[in-house]
Formats: sequence, C-alpha cells, structure tokens
Amino acid sequence: MASEKPKDKAPLTHGITVKKQDDMSEWYNQVVLKAELADYAPTHGMMIIRPHGYSIWESIQHFFNPLIEASGVRNAYFPLLIPESFFHKEKEHFEGFEAEVAWVERKDEKEERVALRPTSETIMYDTFSRWIRSHRDLPMKINQWCNIIRWEIKQTKLFLRTREFLWQEGHCAYASHEECLQDAKHFLQLYQKVAEELLAVPVIPGRKTIAERFAGADETFTIEGFMPDGKALQMGTSHDLGTNFAKPFNVKFQGDDGQEHFVHQGSWGISTRMIGAVVMVHGDDKGLVLPPRVAKNKVVIVPILFDASREEVSKAAQHMQEELKEFGAMLDTRENYSPGWKFNEWEMKGIPIRVELGPKDLAQQQCVLVRRDTGQKKFVPLQKLHAEVKSELDAMHHAMLEKARHFLQQSIHDVSTWKEFEQALDQRKLIRMPFCGRPECEKEIKEKTTATSRCIPMEEKPLSNAACVHCNQKAEWRTLFSKAY
Amino acid sequence: MASEKPKDKAPLTHGITVKKQDDMSEWYNQVVLKAELADYAPTHGMMIIRPHGYSIWESIQHFFNPLIEASGVRNAYFPLLIPESFFHKEKEHFEGFEAEVAWVERKDEKEERVALRPTSETIMYDTFSRWIRSHRDLPMKINQWCNIIRWEIKQTKLFLRTREFLWQEGHCAYASHEECLQDAKHFLQLYQKVAEELLAVPVIPGRKTIAERFAGADETFTIEGFMPDGKALQMGTSHDLGTNFAKPFNVKFQGDDGQEHFVHQGSWGISTRMIGAVVMVHGDDKGLVLPPRVAKNKVVIVPILFDASREEVSKAAQHMQEELKEFGAMLDTRENYSPGWKFNEWEMKGIPIRVELGPKDLAQQQCVLVRRDTGQKKFVPLQKLHAEVKSELDAMHHAMLEKARHFLQQSIHDVSTWKEFEQALDQRKLIRMPFCGRPECEKEIKEKTTATSRCIPMEEKPLSNAACVHCNQKAEWRTLFSKAY
Repeated sequence: MASEKPKDKAPLTHGITVKKQDDMSEWYNQVVLKAELADYAPTHGMMIIRPHGYSIWESIQHFFNPLIEASGVRNAYFPLLIPESFFHKEKEHFEGFEAEVAWVERKDEKEERVALRPTSETIMYDTFSRWIRSHRDLPMKINQWCNIIRWEIKQTKLFLRTREFLWQEGHCAYASHEECLQDAKHFLQLYQKVAEELLAVPVIPGRKTIAERFAGADETFTIEGFMPDGKALQMGTSHDLGTNFAKPFNVKFQGDDGQEHFVHQGSWGISTRMIGAVVMVHGDDKGLVLPPRVAKNKVVIVPILFDASREEVSKAAQHMQEELKEFGAMLDTRENYSPGWKFNEWEMKGIPIRVELGPKDLAQQQCVLVRRDTGQKKFVPLQKLHAEVKSELDAMHHAMLEKARHFLQQSIHDVSTWKEFEQALDQRKLIRMPFCGRPECEKEIKEKTTATSRCIPMEEKPLSNAACVHCNQKAEWRTLFSKAY
Repeated sequence: MASEKPKDKAPLTHGITVKKQDDMSEWYNQVVLKAELADYAPTHGMMIIRPHGYSIWESIQHFFNPLIEASGVRNAYFPLLIPESFFHKEKEHFEGFEAEVAWVERKDEKEERVALRPTSETIMYDTFSRWIRSHRDLPMKINQWCNIIRWEIKQTKLFLRTREFLWQEGHCAYASHEECLQDAKHFLQLYQKVAEELLAVPVIPGRKTIAERFAGADETFTIEGFMPDGKALQMGTSHDLGTNFAKPFNVKFQGDDGQEHFVHQGSWGISTRMIGAVVMVHGDDKGLVLPPRVAKNKVVIVPILFDASREEVSKAAQHMQEELKEFGAMLDTRENYSPGWKFNEWEMKGIPIRVELGPKDLAQQQCVLVRRDTGQKKFVPLQKLHAEVKSELDAMHHAMLEKARHFLQQSIHDVSTWKEFEQALDQRKLIRMPFCGRPECEKEIKEKTTATSRCIPMEEKPLSNAACVHCNQKAEWRTLFSKAY
C-alpha cells in the first residue's frame, strides 16, 4: 500500500504508472489521487474530498433528492453527538458499533459522555418518540445528508473505508409492518436507480443473510456491485428494523382503534463509497472514466493553436463552448502545455468527451470528437456538434452500463461442491450456491476463505430440496458469496 | 369568506402564548419550536433542525451556490477532525478558539490528539501547501458546507448559539494582496445579497474593529443585522488573513518572476444563524412569517368543505394546487380540523400566502387570497390566481424588506457624549459615534455596558478632527455600537 503521508511538494508525476489488471489496489490509489478526486488527510484514515470528487457527490444528491421527496421524505439535520446512554438501549445495535465509536473528551464530568455518530438511529428515534403521537403523524419519513465517524482500524482506503465519510441516512416510522417492508424495498430500488441510471454501475439487489445483517435489524436489503478485481462492494443498504428500536425508545402512536401501538421502522443509506465504485468499475489504464450523467463537465474542448491561425481557432472554440454550455463544457486554453499533454490530463480526469479543433478542421467546418470510454474518434460537422455530443453522451452511458453488466453476469459461477467453491474463489468469481443460512456455517466459511455472503438475490425462490454446499445441512436459498471490500 | 366558514370554537392551544414585544426571548423560543423549525436535542446546547427549518437552509444553499460558482469557487469536503499541532502553528488563531474546542478521546496514544473543527483554516491550509505550486494554481477558491463544533458555555439558543451548527466556509488563496482584499469584499456583498434579496433582512456591511476581528485575521468584514429587541446580530463575516496562515503553514507559490512567495488568504462564512434572523426580524404575535423567496411552500390552499359541495370544492382546490405547483402550493384537506384551526396553524408556520375556497366563492369563480405579512384579504378571480400569487409574493418580499429597513434606519442614533450613549443603549438603539478604535477602550465600554462595536460601516470616511465619545482620545472612524446576540 502506498504511504499515507502526503509528500511535501513532491514533483507532479503525471499519468497512471501501473496497469489496472496488474495491481488494482495501487492503480486505484493513483487514479483517485491523480484524477484529483480525493487526497489523504493529515489524520490517519481520513480523507479530503477534492472538488472533482465532490461534484460527483453533488450529482448523486441532485439525482436522489427529488426521488425521495416524491416518496414523502423530508430532509432535516440531527446532532453529530449522541449520548452514551442511547447506545445501551438497543443491545444488539451497540455491540455492532462499539469498537468503531469515537467519543468526545468530557469538559464537564456532570455532563453525559457523548459519541460521534456512527449512524443516527438512536438519536433520531429518541426524538421520534416525542414527535409521533397519533396515526395521523405517520408515516414519518426523515432523511439527512451528513458526515459519519467510524473508527476503522482495518486498512483504510480512500472512499471505500475511511474514518469519516459522507452519506445520507433515511429514517422512517410506520403504523404497519407491511408499509415498512414495502418502503424498505422501495428505497432499495431507488438505490439501484442511482447505481445504474446515474453511475452506470450494475448491481444485484438482494437480502442479507443473518450474519451480514445490520446491527439491530430484522432484515437488511442490499445492492451489491462486483469489482474488476473479483471483490464485491456493498453499495447501499435498507433495513427493516421492525419494532427493535421502537420498544427501547418508546416510539408509540395512538391508532384509529384508540389504542397505543409501537411504530415499525426502517432506515437506509448510501455513501461516498459510491464514488469508489465508479472509479473501480469504469476506470482504465489511462485513469478515470466518468459516466456522463454524473460528470459536471461532460466535455472538454482542446483547441490546437498555431500562431498563424490562433485567433480564428480560439474564437471558434469559444463559440463551441457557449454552444455546449448545458454539458458544462470546459475550454482548455492554457499556454505552456501541448495538446498531447492536455489530452492525457483530461483522459486521466475522466472527462467523457473531448473535442479537438485545429485550423484544418476549422477550414472544413468540422471538429474531432473523442469518447473517453472507447477512445473512438469521429469527425463531426460543426453544425451538428450539439446534437452529436448529446447522443454520444447518451450512447456512452448505455455502453458503459452494458459493458459492466456483461462483466458482472460473466462473473457469477454456480457451484455445487466445496471444491468448486474454492476454485471459483481462486478465480475471483461471484459464487452462487445453495446455502443453509446459518451464522455458524457462514463464520466457518469466512475463517477458511475470507469470503462472505453478499446477498440472496431478490429473484431467488426458496429451495425445497437442496443441501448447503459447505455444511451439507438443509439449504434455504441460493446465496451469493465472494471476497468483498 | 367569513360568513360561510363552519363554526370554529376550539381554542388554539398550540399557538404562541406571549407577545413579541413583551418577551422576545420567550416568543422566539416558542416560534422556533411551534413552527417546527428546530427542536432541542438530548445533549446540552445542541439542536435538531426540523424539515421546515432545514428547507430554509436548502434555499440558502440553492441561492448561494451559483453565486460563488460564478466567482470561481468550487465545493469540496475537508475532514471534521484536526490535529492538535495545527492549532499551535498560528498562535492568535488558537487562542481565539482554545476554550471552545472539543477533543476526541484518544484510542491509541501513539496517534496525535484531534479536535472537532471549530473552523477549517488550519486543516485546509496545510493541504493548500501541497496543492499550490505555481502562480498558475492561483487563485484557489474552495468552499465547503459542513457542521461546526464550538463548545459554547454561554447560554445557548436555537440557531443563534449552539454547540453544533451548519455553515459554509470559503477559503481562498491569491498571488496578491489586492485580489485577496477585493474578493473578501466581494464575498461580503454576496452575503448582503443572501440577507436582503433572499431573506428580506436588511444589513449593514462594514469592517470590524480590532477587538472584534476574527482570530488570526488582518481585517474582518461583517454584515450586521439589527433585531427588534435592540440587539445586533452578526450574520456573516469575511476575513482578510493576509499571510498570517501562509507563513506557519508554508503556503507558497512560484511567481512568474521565478521566485517563491507566500500566498495571501481569505476566508468567509455564513451559518444556520441566518434562520434565527429570519424568525426575529419578520415574525409576529401569530408566529413565523417566511419571506416568500426562501419558503419552499409559498402557498397553502384551504378548501372550506360542507357536505353538499364537498366534491366540487375539493376538485377545484386540487386544480388550484396543480396550477400553483411552481410555488410549492400545499392543499390542506385534513378532516378533523376546522378551517379556522388550519388558518392559525399555517399562520404560525409562516406560509406566505393562504388561499381560501368555499362553495360561494366557487359559484362566483373567485377565491380569497390572504397575505401572511399584512393579513390583507383580497378576492381574486380564479382565472387570475396564478398571476396574482406571483405578483403578491413579489410585493410581499419588497414590503417585508422595506419594513425591516425602516426599523433598522430608525434604530440608528448618533451620539456625541457618553451620557447620550448610555441613554441610547437603554432605549435599545444602534449607536453611531466617533470611536478611537483602541481595544482597551472597547474593553472598558463592554465591561461598563455589555455593548460591543458592531462595525465601521463601509461608507464611512476617516475622521480628521473628532474625539472618541468614550475616552476622548483621537477618534478614527464613526463606529456602530450596541448589545448583540
């Protein structure tokens, strides 16, 4: 692993120096740093999200906010600091987070010790117990975009595993369990939309096994991505919490029957980890490849400037930028850099489309359009540029999604013996197999192989007559296993 | 129409129970809580920002982000946690924040102690020292929207003074001091736009005296609002940091002269405190009055429903909601609440325009439009509703701003003797007077009266032949003094 200590004024070495397939971990670090998505922070395990990375997060927010608002969710903000006593109310939840919780030094011994939020179920539900009185207050659907602190001691990695990250967390309360479960699945579908329709990252929606459930949940749903190095990435989760928090936090409502009932609750979250998936799934040996819908600057125009034609080419390029304004087109007029150097730089930063314009092109009223994902060059009449950019961006999204989907589908291997399991894992596959679902069995698998269950895909049907590939006991569901981030 | 309203005799138990002019502090708390802008958190001095309050913050973000983007600023995210050693690099800055800084309990004694950010100059500029190499990297303008922790021990107050609040902090580095100073004033102007053009809160832009400067700044600019209870509210600040941070954090660039130079830096911030100003400046004895541009839901439609005409009135009201969609029109169809109860509720929550529709109105193809700021009722032909709502919202913004501006201007009292100063302060005025500018003199004034200098208004000219009203030494500038939040 690359050193986490930032080098002071180290020379700026351009270009990615390892191939993605040779050392994906090092390749990933280089892409994230050199494409200027993020940087290491001075504090161990923390990250700085740079503007080029943060704009991806803003795109996710702009895509997601209207979807949840249409689902009756309202944004709010709850405190960063959570009283210690809240963690002790739901035992399973606390045990799930205990090791990762960071605490604030007390200034006054009379005040209760407080933690930095690792997630906000407890502090929100304490409040819900005061806000919810009657069935007319339900459903209550609250979301917040905020920072989260989990004191990771495992090896940290930019965007994927850091002590602080940004996320959204939705928290809902319902009168009935049906509504709760239905919404838990609904929000998972919205996550799938974010992954596939915005980020062009295909995912498998499914249910977690007992061993992989969220601490305190009756059921956890997940969207799982599969990375080119053969590791799964959990990209979003949605939990049916049942009445597990309602009881200790006393979240009750008066039903239309006049009686008091506990609410049913759900919570759901996606994080800046999504940005890591974009890098891994789409990047290549030249660097980042941004899915067009998420790119703030979808086009960069590089004019090829010679002294004799400088003025007219510059003017035409400015005109192009104006015409392509809705795509956030940038115009790279920097002196001191050659066109070739600029091409490399914008390729490394993943800008979806590059437009080149030189004097010969201009004389013929055309330009060169280059797609970042395929590298394909195309001469385009200036008159048709706007329409071509629009359709190429659209085609690019679908091509990137399809390519990644093909990889995902090719990666799934059905196994029926333990030997096949081990072989498939060596080949970095996503294993599908009949599984008993028992935490003890899963623990043994993890200890032997480091592989974990990823999910029981939504479309699976219960097995009636099959044995667990590992323990040979009755298998419940076909379940996906692999190594994971 | 009053005559056709169903009988409403239920007292509004959830209304505001004190008058604004009788006890503004208690009135403020009630409005914030009962209009559901915010709630107290379980931890002392912290707040929960409820959806109705958070949407004001989102409006501020949506208004402000395009303004700063047009000024070359890019959004990013820096870590919450700041190494202790960073605070010791700039002595004056650390002394300014020392008492308010909260620290994280150490899990590992080998790791450096870290603080929760009270502001991010130090952690950002450490990074700037690695990102900035050449004059081509300048100006560098970074902003972040984030949470801030300051362990306030004074009496806390929702939105105005809490241990955690939300803000944006812009941090810029420049090659020259001229650019730095120019931008510090530019961002202050943007703050004035937010206050006046979005929130309808008039402010006085000015410079802080030495005693009131930001810790570590060469110069602090401020926009000061003046509240109905005769206290000023600092609503946004912009600092010229000179090279005070560049030197200890070693933020240098190679100029086009080939030499290394320290950058000049500026920082600027506005916070959720702005929401407190909206409440205090515009609210009345019925509750909140939202300035129309900041209100997410600018209109509420209350249909007056009787059994005989229920269906047609409901249908017409739905049609109105559709027609007023761009104003975020809500339709209040709740059963079990009388129209009068609903009127009071939406008045308390500050919705700018209420539209009433009863069967007699419908028969005449008209409705009643009620403006929240004036309470004025107006019959409006249904055909003209959209246009009327649009123009009333616009008129309302200007009327609210003008009313508040009139109050502000009426509040300024020029004094030329210490006795007049004391009298004006008793009358809760904003005092303008010749002042020497000396921190010692200002400290004495504060100890005697609790009043502090608010600013030297931008339009003031230096005094050539005047004596300080307090100490009689040479006065430098006419300066504003008052009590303050």
